[in-house]
Order: sequence, then structure tokens, then C-alpha cells
Amino acid sequence: MAFSVVSTPAHFHLPKKITFRIRCCAASSAPSVATRSKSIQFDLKTYWTTLIADINQKLNEAVPVRYPEQIYESMRYSVLADGAKRASPVMCVAACELFGGNRLAAFPTACALEMVHAASLIHDDLPCMDDDPSRRGQPSNHTIYGEDMAILAGDALFPLGFQHIVSNTPSRLVPEARLLRVITEIARTVGSSGMAAGQFLDLEGGPDAVEFVQEKKFGEMGQCSAVCGGLLAGAEDEEVDRLRRYGRAVGVLYQVVDDILEEKKNGKDDKKKEKKGKSYVKVYGIEKAMEVAEKLRAQAKQELDGFEKYGDGVVPLHSFVDYAVDRSFTL
Amino acid sequence: MAFSVVSTPAHFHLPKKITFRIRCCAASSAPSVATRSKSIQFDLKTYWTTLIADINQKLNEAVPVRYPEQIYESMRYSVLADGAKRASPVMCVAACELFGGNRLAAFPTACALEMVHAASLIHDDLPCMDDDPSRRGQPSNHTIYGEDMAILAGDALFPLGFQHIVSNTPSRLVPEARLLRVITEIARTVGSSGMAAGQFLDLEGGPDAVEFVQEKKFGEMGQCSAVCGGLLAGAEDEEVDRLRRYGRAVGVLYQVVDDILEEKKNGKDDKKKEKKGKSYVKVYGIEKAMEVAEKLRAQAKQELDGFEKYGDGVVPLHSFVDYAVDRSFTL
Repeated sequence: MAFSVVSTPAHFHLPKKITFRIRCCAASSAPSVATRSKSIQFDLKTYWTTLIADINQKLNEAVPVRYPEQIYESMRYSVLADGAKRASPVMCVAACELFGGNRLAAFPTACALEMVHAASLIHDDLPCMDDDPSRRGQPSNHTIYGEDMAILAGDALFPLGFQHIVSNTPSRLVPEARLLRVITEIARTVGSSGMAAGQFLDLEGGPDAVEFVQEKKFGEMGQCSAVCGGLLAGAEDEEVDRLRRYGRAVGVLYQVVDDILEEKKNGKDDKKKEKKGKSYVKVYGIEKAMEVAEKLRAQAKQELDGFEKYGDGVVPLHSFVDYAVDRSFTL
Repeated sequence: MAFSVVSTPAHFHLPKKITFRIRCCAASSAPSVATRSKSIQFDLKTYWTTLIADINQKLNEAVPVRYPEQIYESMRYSVLADGAKRASPVMCVAACELFGGNRLAAFPTACALEMVHAASLIHDDLPCMDDDPSRRGQPSNHTIYGEDMAILAGDALFPLGFQHIVSNTPSRLVPEARLLRVITEIARTVGSSGMAAGQFLDLEGGPDAVEFVQEKKFGEMGQCSAVCGGLLAGAEDEEVDRLRRYGRAVGVLYQVVDDILEEKKNGKDDKKKEKKGKSYVKVYGIEKAMEVAEKLRAQAKQELDGFEKYGDGVVPLHSFVDYAVDRSFTL
């Protein structure tokens, strides 16, 4: 797979502080909502703030402190970490609501997505993997709890996610067959054809593996989050396919922008240890990475055009793309 | 929890070579089948041989070699390892058949149990955990593939197990609700209240943690294997509870006998590096460990008495207890 080179359009900027802009539906092929941006701006802010507060509360309940406490504390450290953007659970709930699903139906899966994602990050940071002593400005899990505990915390979070979905999804809202599809989707995503494969190629593959690594390590999680939301709400197969393409593009987009921001920050701080791992920035340079990001943004927006019939219901998913590009767009 | 000290009865022996004895139903409270031991002996041998061959074939199909090959090869190395006794899958299938279930309904779950068990062992052997360079006389996974790959292989095997159950269990044989119960059972077993908790206490806890460690690291897997078999066949709740107690006792029994055999072997070889981890033998000595084993054998047999109404259907589960005690009883 390869991204074609496109010129960087004037409206693609890296995040600026304070600015709060609505750029959802601003892609050329989508109807403009610029005229109603003020009202949407308010609703969106409430929507995201409420949603993230709810997710944080649910996560706090989902990973309690039990005997033996140290393993649960290690799990909680990473799942409830400050600075986690809740990108996966937010996308899952937003996708579920797009199709008229109740967010109560989506919360357990949303929490599970955050758990398996945290598990994956804990293991990725280990000394024998990416050897990263910090994550989002905080010490990595193994830096605090040791390698053995970090491995166990990850090993415990993966199954807890599945258990949480089955035990906590209201059966009156989601039929069993849908839950089984959700479980399969998450299992495939974190496994040897998904994120684990991405991490392997990140460690082993040559520079030409960058597309595969980005798709697998970051695209898979975005894709899975959107798809699970749709599945829970009973979306049609065609709609699930569209969510899949949308989520995949947003997942990679999110990471490419992260890498661009990291590169810009590190450029000002020569002492900063360079992170291991492959990124478009490292392999192709920052200009090409920005082109890739713009392409992904356009792809994601284009997919959402296919949900036009759902009206404003699609606005949260649009705003998520905007947030991926512009982090000053506060979620 | 504590095991009471009982005298070692005359009929409790450690394995002798060559001998092939039928001791199923030999517990005092169970009806003796000594008079028909010859015919059962033949049937059992065929039963186990066929079953293990089938399971090996299913496992070979369940973990194929795909891109990226190295991660799949690492997974296959541990799942298809020579010397694996297939204790979990065998118990799952036998429990399913006891309640009239078709073994085709049980094979995907049986394979999943072997996958998650292998994943757990791969991670337990890591240098920062038990630091064991070998497993069943072969090099450990990380000894061959490196620590990073061993972590990824484990991380990939856990979800593959869940995915395999959902994708391969014939829906005509097992309703969706039962599959969800099976998934919850396995997730709980491998997670922070199950095997991961056991491994944690094995690393961290004092000598008094030995009962907890043995129950969690070994009893949980036996319990889960028997329970899943019953659930797949639609066993009643009371029957599932009985399978739970039976499987737990057999799981710990199996390990205690392993530890006794290991101790006897190591006693003859001073150069052999002593394994990390807690066992009854290390904490209480070999005599007490044998008493514990006898108690567990009797407990397991007693639970099976409750399945008397199923007639000869319970013979495989009896023979599994015998095998746990006497390894010359070839499976």
C-alpha cells in the first residue's frame, strides 16, 4: 500500500494553542456547515466533555482495586493515566450513537477498547520492545512497577476487556450475536494479524515496512473502535465497511500528526532521546508526513459523506477527524 | 484455604514405568468397576489416543503460518510443542461429552484453552518472571525467538483463542449465549483474578502464599477446562459447579505430582538448577505434598460420584484423575 503525494493545502495547519475551530464537513465534497458553526461548537464541547467524563468514571469502576492489589494498581495506573485522550472509547460511542444506539450499550465495549489499548502500550514500552521509560509525559508502567508486573498487567487487561463486555453490556440493548461479532473484532485487532503484527514489524522490518506498521499499530485500533460502535447499534454491513475505512484513516492520521508534533518538539530539544519505532516522519521526512496526513484527513471526511442521511448525527465523527489534525480543538 | 493433613493411603503410588492401571472409580464411595477393567482399559486407550490426535490436528490448523511468519512460528512453537499433554483440551472435550455434547462443539474451545495456556507459560518463562530457559525439556520460547517475540507471541495467542471460539464453533451445536459464558470463563481464568494473580503471588508473595499460587496457576486452568466443556453441552448450573470443583482439584493435583516427580529427579542430579516458584514440595516437603495429592485425588473422585447417572460417560474424567497421579497411565 502507498499514499500518493498531494500538495499540502492552505487549510492544513498543525495545531495552534487556544484556537477552537470547527472544521467538520469542511472537506470540498461535504456540505459546509460554517454558517451554523457556533451552535455546533457549543453542542460538541458539551458532547465531548460529558462523554469523556462518563468514560473515565466507567473505566474507574471497570478496573477496581482487588486482591492482589499490586497487579490491579499497575493496571489502573495505565488505564486511568492522565493524558489519555480516550480516542478509542470516544469513537466507539460516537459510532454507536450515529446509528441510533444507546450509549449505555457502548460503554462496556468502549472501556474494553481502552483496556486492550493500554495493555498493548504497556507491552510496547518494555525494555525488550520500544524501551520507552515514559508514556504521555509520565513514567511507563514498567518504570514504576517493574517489567514482571508490567507484563502481568497487560496480560490481565486483555482478558478483562472481553470479560467486561460480556458481563456489563445490557442484554436488552444488544443481542448476543452482536456481542460475539464485537469480541471477534477486538480479538482480531489486538492479535497476530493486527497490532501484534504491527509491533513485530516495527521491531524487525526494514524502513519500507512503515506503511504496514502504521496501519497495524494505529489504523487497526481506530478501525476497530468505529466498527464496534456500529456493530453494537446494528449498523448494516455496508455501513460497517464504511466505518472500517473511516476509523482506519483516522487512527493512522492521529499517529502521523503525533509524530509530526513530536518531531517539531524534538527539533527544539537536542537532548531529547529519539524514540524507537518507525514513522512517516522518520522515514520520509516531515513534509511528506504532512501530505500523508492531509490525504488521510480527506479520506476520513469522504467516508463520512456516505452517512449524510443521518444528518447532524455524523458531526461527532467529523469533529474527531478535526481533533486528530488540530489538537487545540479541545475534546 | 488450607489442606488438612491425611495419612498417605497404601494405594497411592507415584508413577511406575510401563504399568497401565485402571483406577477410575476406585475411590471408596464410588462403585467399583474392577471386574470390567479390561474392556474399559481398551476403550480408554482408543478414546484418549484418538482424542489427542484430533486435538493436535485442530491446533495445527488453528495456528497457521501467515505473514508476518516469525510471530506465527513463535506461536506455533509453543502451542504445538512436543511433550504437551493436552490436559486442558482433553478435559474440556471429555466434560462436554459427559453431558451428551458433540466433540465438534468442543474442539474450538479446547484449542483456545491450549492457546491461552501456552501464552501464559511463554510469559511465565521470561527472564523477568520465572527465568526458565527450558520447558518440557525443550528451549523456552524466548530462548529461541527472543524476549520481544515471546511477549508478542503470548499477546497474540490470548486473543486468537477467543477469536477461534467464535469463528469455529458450529452455531447449530452451541447457542450464542453459551459461547459468551465460555468466553467469560476463559477471560476470568487467565486474568487478574485467575492465573495472572497466581503468577504475581508466585513472584511476590511469601511462602504462605503457596496454596493461593497453586490454586490460581494450576487449579484455575483445570477448573476452566472442565467448566467450559460442561457449558458447551448445556450442563445444569449444579453440574457446572461440580465440574468446577472437580477441575480445580485435578488441576492442582496434576501440578503437585509434577513437583513431586521433579523433586525426586532433582534429588538425583545436584547440578540441576532449581526452578523458581512456589510448590507444596518446596514449602512443606515431599511427604506433605503427597498427602495433599492424595486429598485432591479423593476430592476429584468424590465430585465425579455426583455424575453417577451418566454411567460410563464419566469414565474418561475418572481416568484423567488417575493419569494426574500415575503418569505411566498413558494418555
